[in-house]
Amino acid sequence: MKSELIRAREAAKIARTVSESQKNEALFAMGEQILCSTDAILTANAKDVEAAKKRVETTTRIDRLLLNEHRIQMMVDGLHEIMALPDPIGEVIEIWTRPNGLRIEQVRVPFGVVGIIYEARPNVTVDTSALTVKTGNAVVLRGGKEAFETNIALTVALRKALHDVLLPSDLVVMVTDTDRRSVDDLIRARGLVDLVIPRGGAGLISHVVENATVPVIETGVGNCHVYIDSHANLAMALDIIVNAKTDRPSVCNAAETLLIHSAVAPSFVPIAAEKLTKLGVELRLDAKANHLLENESIIAKQATEEDFATEFLAPILAVKVVESLDEAIDHIGHYGTGHSEAIVTDENEVAKEFLQRIDAAAVYHNASTRFTDGYEFGFGAELGISTQKLHARGPMGLRELTSYKYVIRGNGHIRR
Amino acid sequence: MKSELIRAREAAKIARTVSESQKNEALFAMGEQILCSTDAILTANAKDVEAAKKRVETTTRIDRLLLNEHRIQMMVDGLHEIMALPDPIGEVIEIWTRPNGLRIEQVRVPFGVVGIIYEARPNVTVDTSALTVKTGNAVVLRGGKEAFETNIALTVALRKALHDVLLPSDLVVMVTDTDRRSVDDLIRARGLVDLVIPRGGAGLISHVVENATVPVIETGVGNCHVYIDSHANLAMALDIIVNAKTDRPSVCNAAETLLIHSAVAPSFVPIAAEKLTKLGVELRLDAKANHLLENESIIAKQATEEDFATEFLAPILAVKVVESLDEAIDHIGHYGTGHSEAIVTDENEVAKEFLQRIDAAAVYHNASTRFTDGYEFGFGAELGISTQKLHARGPMGLRELTSYKYVIRGNGHIRR
Repeated sequence: MKSELIRAREAAKIARTVSESQKNEALFAMGEQILCSTDAILTANAKDVEAAKKRVETTTRIDRLLLNEHRIQMMVDGLHEIMALPDPIGEVIEIWTRPNGLRIEQVRVPFGVVGIIYEARPNVTVDTSALTVKTGNAVVLRGGKEAFETNIALTVALRKALHDVLLPSDLVVMVTDTDRRSVDDLIRARGLVDLVIPRGGAGLISHVVENATVPVIETGVGNCHVYIDSHANLAMALDIIVNAKTDRPSVCNAAETLLIHSAVAPSFVPIAAEKLTKLGVELRLDAKANHLLENESIIAKQATEEDFATEFLAPILAVKVVESLDEAIDHIGHYGTGHSEAIVTDENEVAKEFLQRIDAAAVYHNASTRFTDGYEFGFGAELGISTQKLHARGPMGLRELTSYKYVIRGNGHIRR
Repeated sequence: MKSELIRAREAAKIARTVSESQKNEALFAMGEQILCSTDAILTANAKDVEAAKKRVETTTRIDRLLLNEHRIQMMVDGLHEIMALPDPIGEVIEIWTRPNGLRIEQVRVPFGVVGIIYEARPNVTVDTSALTVKTGNAVVLRGGKEAFETNIALTVALRKALHDVLLPSDLVVMVTDTDRRSVDDLIRARGLVDLVIPRGGAGLISHVVENATVPVIETGVGNCHVYIDSHANLAMALDIIVNAKTDRPSVCNAAETLLIHSAVAPSFVPIAAEKLTKLGVELRLDAKANHLLENESIIAKQATEEDFATEFLAPILAVKVVESLDEAIDHIGHYGTGHSEAIVTDENEVAKEFLQRIDAAAVYHNASTRFTDGYEFGFGAELGISTQKLHARGPMGLRELTSYKYVIRGNGHIRR
């Protein structure tokens, strides 16, 4: 493992000074090479899928793993999209001259070596390689063993493309050791790895955070709320909660809890409950909300404390009636994961207070939480959504894969 | 310990929305209260100093601990300087409107709760409390046991001042438990503490980095180099290496190794060696440099591999003759700690290559490494110098104590 990291480190030294056009040439070559290698990639993928079927994995998990010509083309399209994005490296973030004449430039630079730890989706192999190459970083890929054969075939293609355009193939290095120890070796390789990003389930992320000594950007868990204020447009509120819950329940920016002010709960809860249950959403109601549905024919469960703390990632919604904005903010402060939180209200002052007091990566006024996404934000790419506050918060694009340095020019300046 | 962190967390919720003028009022009150409490602070400090003397600590260590009226006034002056700095909180970093009409603002916000782990200097207690209050954060102070009594007296004054201006006194919380376990409790308090900054020696920093699960900003170790190129102005080069080594040898931005191109080594090494040894610097020379001093009356040791890897923090300088820019860059890549690195050359193309290829927080052309400092950079305050690449690199001022969030305003926007 160490020798692989050293190779990536050497490659990163070269990548630091590679021009934008060279990096784009590499991305294009990576796409061409993937297309040329379609047969080899599909053959490798068939082995992984076969093995998954033998292990009697769920169809969802097998689908996550599966590649076909269309999905391969989508990966290549993704490479072309990243080619079209501006290169952040070398950007002068700030420049100033000190009274003593020293000129200080803050310049955007690559991190160096970025480790990515992920699970079954093979497209992550290609996406993250493209993002790191574009930002002048080397990447160490440690994918899940379910996609082992596929990842090997993809990495071989990516490395060949880099070699063909005269860049170090070690800009993309795959860890072929798939036991847990290889994760630990990677996340503890201080001095060799500059940053680790875990992409996957809560278990993987907490293992990395607990054990890493290399800096980590934590991605993901989203226990998101939509709060309907007493002065909300209820038609808008209904659209937003329906969208936030049902558009794609399995993703981190989907809503998990509806908070509703008691002043509008009697008119809103029955309508919302009817609509949501029709759409297949299972409701978990607190006592007050439950009471409002007593005379309705809607079947709903009682919410437990645990329901409010859970990221369901499924068509399930917890519902709670609150007496005030303060109660809503306190509830979110207690159960939220700092991902995405929305208020629906016509009162700008109430919205302002919510937006300021809620401590989350993305706070919304009169919009669905579903917009927390690199593409929806206009970043053109996404490497995940950070739920920590250090370095990157919210959707991470190319810029979030960079650091900076200070370049100082003098004329014999010494400090007195 | 946990209850203290919860109190800080609650205070941080309030601090998030406090105005700039209120925060400045608090800083002013903190200064007044420290002046009012001078007697109590000096009495407490005398106990710490007494105890240090009983332990037969070195005079340097005792001096680091010692307060007097002048030093207390300097702390208060520091508070006034931080008052005068602009408040970074609420700054709109970027704002844009998406094609669908969603308006996205990236707004600077406080971290929340910041933990500071430090050693003997009591001024850190006041400085960091001021920086965190100004940036709307709550701080948890875990100082060294050498300054325990002094830190209690200072914290009592700071907390009283906060209370007097109607802010939560828990914006400044001191951990009164001084065993190592309290450090571990603090650095593993995920969900309660947003960021930990260790300020102190290499042992403390590596303990924190190894064991923290809370995000860390690593400060400090500086094995800095000055490289004299074959086309350098040698008079300028001499000024710079003398300044970088002797201005203040005990700090992290002091130079530890002189690298010199073989083309100018014969004329430069003897002159530099004479000047530096006269100034009390002990030289550790590689074989080539040693050879150049054979006929001189200068006493110097042979450099070992370890010398090149050491941050002496003392009037000791390792010297190595290199054959090329590449060799200098490789040496720095191998032994450097990513802090501050300088080149002296009249060739702009050579300088450009050095500045681009060297991977450090601050890279200098024709200037001393000693300028890597928040005040010298014009930040008006400094919380340490980061040697990591995540979030903050180089001198950290107020802005580096902030995170950001996205505030998104819609008009019933849902994702389709």
